[in-house]
Amino acid sequence: MVMGNRAPNKLEWRINVRNGTSEILQPESGLVHRIWSWLKGLLGEFMLKIWNFLEKARNIAVAEPKKVIHCLKVGVTLTIVSLFYYMRPLYEGVGGNAMWAIMTVVVVFEYTVGATLYKCINRAIATFLAGSLGVGVHWAASHSGDKLEPIILGISVFLLASAATFSRFIPSVKARFDYGVLIFILTFSLVSVSGYRVDKLIDVASQRLSTIAIGASLCVLICMLFYPIWAGKELHNLIHRNLEKLADALDGCIAEYFTDSSAGDSCKKIGGYKCVLNSKAAEDSMAGFARWEPAHGRFNFRHPWKQYLKVGASLRSCAYCIETLDGCLNSEIKAPEPLRRHLSDACITLSSSASFLLKELATTVKTMRKSSEIDFSIGEMQFAVLKLENAMKSLPNHLVATPSSTSDRDAKAEPIRKTTTPSSVMEILPLATLVSMLKETAARIKEIADEVNELAKLADFKPPNTKKASQSQSSNQVDEPSNNEERTKGLG
Amino acid sequence: MVMGNRAPNKLEWRINVRNGTSEILQPESGLVHRIWSWLKGLLGEFMLKIWNFLEKARNIAVAEPKKVIHCLKVGVTLTIVSLFYYMRPLYEGVGGNAMWAIMTVVVVFEYTVGATLYKCINRAIATFLAGSLGVGVHWAASHSGDKLEPIILGISVFLLASAATFSRFIPSVKARFDYGVLIFILTFSLVSVSGYRVDKLIDVASQRLSTIAIGASLCVLICMLFYPIWAGKELHNLIHRNLEKLADALDGCIAEYFTDSSAGDSCKKIGGYKCVLNSKAAEDSMAGFARWEPAHGRFNFRHPWKQYLKVGASLRSCAYCIETLDGCLNSEIKAPEPLRRHLSDACITLSSSASFLLKELATTVKTMRKSSEIDFSIGEMQFAVLKLENAMKSLPNHLVATPSSTSDRDAKAEPIRKTTTPSSVMEILPLATLVSMLKETAARIKEIADEVNELAKLADFKPPNTKKASQSQSSNQVDEPSNNEERTKGLG
Repeated sequence: MVMGNRAPNKLEWRINVRNGTSEILQPESGLVHRIWSWLKGLLGEFMLKIWNFLEKARNIAVAEPKKVIHCLKVGVTLTIVSLFYYMRPLYEGVGGNAMWAIMTVVVVFEYTVGATLYKCINRAIATFLAGSLGVGVHWAASHSGDKLEPIILGISVFLLASAATFSRFIPSVKARFDYGVLIFILTFSLVSVSGYRVDKLIDVASQRLSTIAIGASLCVLICMLFYPIWAGKELHNLIHRNLEKLADALDGCIAEYFTDSSAGDSCKKIGGYKCVLNSKAAEDSMAGFARWEPAHGRFNFRHPWKQYLKVGASLRSCAYCIETLDGCLNSEIKAPEPLRRHLSDACITLSSSASFLLKELATTVKTMRKSSEIDFSIGEMQFAVLKLENAMKSLPNHLVATPSSTSDRDAKAEPIRKTTTPSSVMEILPLATLVSMLKETAARIKEIADEVNELAKLADFKPPNTKKASQSQSSNQVDEPSNNEERTKGLG
Repeated sequence: MVMGNRAPNKLEWRINVRNGTSEILQPESGLVHRIWSWLKGLLGEFMLKIWNFLEKARNIAVAEPKKVIHCLKVGVTLTIVSLFYYMRPLYEGVGGNAMWAIMTVVVVFEYTVGATLYKCINRAIATFLAGSLGVGVHWAASHSGDKLEPIILGISVFLLASAATFSRFIPSVKARFDYGVLIFILTFSLVSVSGYRVDKLIDVASQRLSTIAIGASLCVLICMLFYPIWAGKELHNLIHRNLEKLADALDGCIAEYFTDSSAGDSCKKIGGYKCVLNSKAAEDSMAGFARWEPAHGRFNFRHPWKQYLKVGASLRSCAYCIETLDGCLNSEIKAPEPLRRHLSDACITLSSSASFLLKELATTVKTMRKSSEIDFSIGEMQFAVLKLENAMKSLPNHLVATPSSTSDRDAKAEPIRKTTTPSSVMEILPLATLVSMLKETAARIKEIADEVNELAKLADFKPPNTKKASQSQSSNQVDEPSNNEERTKGLG
């Protein structure tokens, strides 16, 4: 390398060329160019981020147009409320307090009708209560002398704010009146303190209340009349979608294990149970809001929303089991082929009858119509459990038979060869786990069915559509229509 | 019964007395008395409800005094802010906008420092941005004629409100700027619309901003200086408490199965995993708030809070497994005593080494000091898994041996008798499940250990306290101090 005749303290980029010497790589341009390209890169990165963000927003809008409609509704409501400021006659009627109408709309307008009603009702009641209390305290303070007045007001603000803030930690208050308590503190402080300056306190308070009422009722009207999104219906949909997801996951999980297929589509289906695992928070909040909603669609005012939470809890409990099952199936060394083949039919029968039951439950919830097939399906599933147990019991004999190519299953008299060597137990292990987990899953699905039946009773679902039920029953069990009745009698 | 000589349409209560006739039960008093007793009952019920509510509140206060302190802090801050109204000089300085300071305190003061900072920063930035934009739009509108002005303002409010509302549905915006977007809509509407009436718009805006700044900084100061509750620290505590809960649950679960003890205390311990199952929402929100907190205690500004979420996810995954294990152990028909006794040692060893590892991980997170014992404990646990597998492998031979009272375990040459009859496989089933589930749990605990190690690396935990480590190591394995080193070499 030719280095000697150069200034040593200058940074250079060199490249080796073919004839053995090296060439200095000249920077293409000066500082300005570098800064420019750096800025260009930064700008490009920024544009890319913006683009990705817009792409994400577009995907959400396409997937859930309801959300776009909600946004338009908020925009329309806010624009209408602004009329209170623009139009002179209204302005003089409502006064400078029109600001409170805008604030109410921004704060109160929520995605679902239930949430909007919850906030409106809480806001209205809390404002009224805190306003009256504030006026009372202010009256008491103003009659106790100039020196005592600020002290009484200060102490009352301190005590009420502390107590109200503490009440927000109590679960029953938090679930129903969290927002109301916040507004209570706010209004009480404003009214009791502003009373020190403003003489016409009651006038101001009533004006403010009327503005809030105008804003709130506008919100409720627009929220309920144009494409209403009911928290109750969302909860209802969530529950029956989760039932379907569990059915798909269970089916996919077992099918994948026994058929060795791992197509992307089935993987996606199996992953559905993961949504079920984390749906508690969504269910709780929706059930909380649904309580505030009036009768809508097929739901009465006193629809048993709490029972949906119980169904949801039993769904999650089943999802835990499927999660573990999925984990065990993927992590275990697979059982030898003949063993798997022996149990494959029984396992697939059980998983498909269980997932059929889950789908039937999903349909029951979805259509809000009792199904005559549920009891039958439960019987079917429990029969499949028995069949699986029998298949498991016949396993060792089968195991003995496998070395010889003929499958003489009832060779009981034959002296047992090295069947029970240590390795064979370890070979049974994954299958034993599978069987136990399937049994446990079936037991938990039975619990889901019980909760759904309870829901059907509480919510007074329509009686089953007997004609359709008998049709689908005969089409589902074409192969053995004669002994179905017998089996359900014996097991259900 | 003597009925004939009485008025038939009068309701009477009769009682048969000893001499064969019946006596009329006279009502003790009239209508007034009944209403009074009904009212008394109602009042009693009401008082009981109030009493229960207060009892609940007291329990919360006793269990978490931090919450009481938070409430007192809110009360103090609100009282201080009220001074802006009481004191004349301040009143003239800040003007009628002092209301905004009170509103800021009520809305912004949250339980943790992180949440308060999140709201303060969001509120300040959003108010500033929306204020400037509002003034700009107002300026543009006022220069475009009297007729166009309301139209331009209306359209701008509609567009911005809709777009901003929609951005709240995008997860990345929701996680960090949800509150900011709300305040943005509010401020923009108020500023752009009120500009139509108020001439000194910029004056009002700057006054409002300064009041909000006063309220917000007061909140932040009081929140951070007096008994601060850091979201980061809470998250940190939640994670190591959850680690401990899992350790207790696993230990208790196995101990209960093998010792048939079902004392209330152990039941309570086992139930600990249920808290872990539902901790996702709390973890997510705390990690979101922790991001906004400055360096505090042992946590830097850029503490890897996201890694805590990963640890939390692996904890939940392990909790699912323990939930299923618990369910299986309770629902299954118990395995016969000799089989259970055979596996009992190996299972208990595995569960106690796994729960020891979990406790060690909890200590690592708690003290933020790497532990030299973790690798050793992982090796220990994996060795216990191997031992359990071996015990399982030796199960059939053992089963054969049980009829004879002598425990000749290596009677391999002996011809195998009716070991592999159907029933015996079903007897193995619960144990096989237990073994598989324990193996799966151990694998998931290994994942937790990996995530905690990653956390230790990212958060730069202190190096292990070698002296203490070697001490506790020797005290923990007093029975077999010599071959520990050998085992870890072979397995770790």
